[in-house]
Amino acid sequence: MEKSRLEKQLEFIKEIDKEKEITRQTYLASGSRKENDAEHAWHLAVMAYLLSEYANEEIDVAKTMLMVLLHDVVEVDAGDTYAYDEEGKLTQRAREEKAADRLYAILPEDQGQFLRDLWEEFEARETKEAKFARTLDNFQPMMLNAATDGRAWKEHEAKLSKVLKRHAITPEGSKVLWDYAKENFIEPNLDVTLIKDTELE
Amino acid sequence: MEKSRLEKQLEFIKEIDKEKEITRQTYLASGSRKENDAEHAWHLAVMAYLLSEYANEEIDVAKTMLMVLLHDVVEVDAGDTYAYDEEGKLTQRAREEKAADRLYAILPEDQGQFLRDLWEEFEARETKEAKFARTLDNFQPMMLNAATDGRAWKEHEAKLSKVLKRHAITPEGSKVLWDYAKENFIEPNLDVTLIKDTELE
Repeated sequence: MEKSRLEKQLEFIKEIDKEKEITRQTYLASGSRKENDAEHAWHLAVMAYLLSEYANEEIDVAKTMLMVLLHDVVEVDAGDTYAYDEEGKLTQRAREEKAADRLYAILPEDQGQFLRDLWEEFEARETKEAKFARTLDNFQPMMLNAATDGRAWKEHEAKLSKVLKRHAITPEGSKVLWDYAKENFIEPNLDVTLIKDTELE
Repeated sequence: MEKSRLEKQLEFIKEIDKEKEITRQTYLASGSRKENDAEHAWHLAVMAYLLSEYANEEIDVAKTMLMVLLHDVVEVDAGDTYAYDEEGKLTQRAREEKAADRLYAILPEDQGQFLRDLWEEFEARETKEAKFARTLDNFQPMMLNAATDGRAWKEHEAKLSKVLKRHAITPEGSKVLWDYAKENFIEPNLDVTLIKDTELE
């Protein structure tokens, strides 16, 4: 028997409960444990609202909130790929496409298509909302990392050159937030936890 | 020295990181552990988007999403009060008011006032958005509870009469979701985990 519209929606809602068990590499501000995808997405959605005034261009805040709330759904199947895991990143796109095919198909077609398009928009980083969402996605772990004295960077022996390469796109969404992060999150860790293999401009 | 607007916003964003460590009584759908406030709020925000069509009245979805994202902020200071903790509920309002005074004052005044008003609106349950947000806040733990065969109800020796009393307000936001919950979450647990001290109509 064909599932009802509500049953499909609830199946998806129950399926993404698994995001609460996808662990990221970032520690909570207290340092007590690493955070998970659901907590991270919640934090980004609040930040999208509170910090929208710093976007380079005026953004649709509600759209950005929804985008960040669901930007990691594919990780239910594909797992979290750490920003500096070069090997994992080679297969990341293929794993995530396959996950998207399965997960968004659980929903009623209209909502599944809309949310898949929103995820593709986030990934493509061309619209102002996608650019700002990506800035937040990069800013939030740096903020938590600074709160724990660079613990994740230290554990992964992160090099400044790689951090800067990753963050080459961060100012695209908000120059203000990137400048703040450079001065307050990266600079203080330069002689302590980050391997300084290049210069910070 | 007076903090800048951005510093105030980031202080609040860091402060509410603590929501990730406020444990609720509901288990994750997998049953592996209990969920926390941040995960719960994330889940509700996604549900506000996906299920808005079932609200009794047409709602402002973005407003409802923001409302549920931050509806438990006060628990950073006041802790989680379980729905069936009658003693804790006596002091709940006073503890939460005090927490709101401290927490929203961290933000720039305009945002602090706006979010405090939004929280008060949620608490008052008078607007259609607040009613629907409360329905979701009641529906989501029942959904997870049913996914774990009524585990939280069993552990707390929950009685049907108390569950029905708590859910007297649930249909105010969505009659459809309440009917679904009654049939799919409560009814199947009646002879197994819920103490049947009254009749389910």
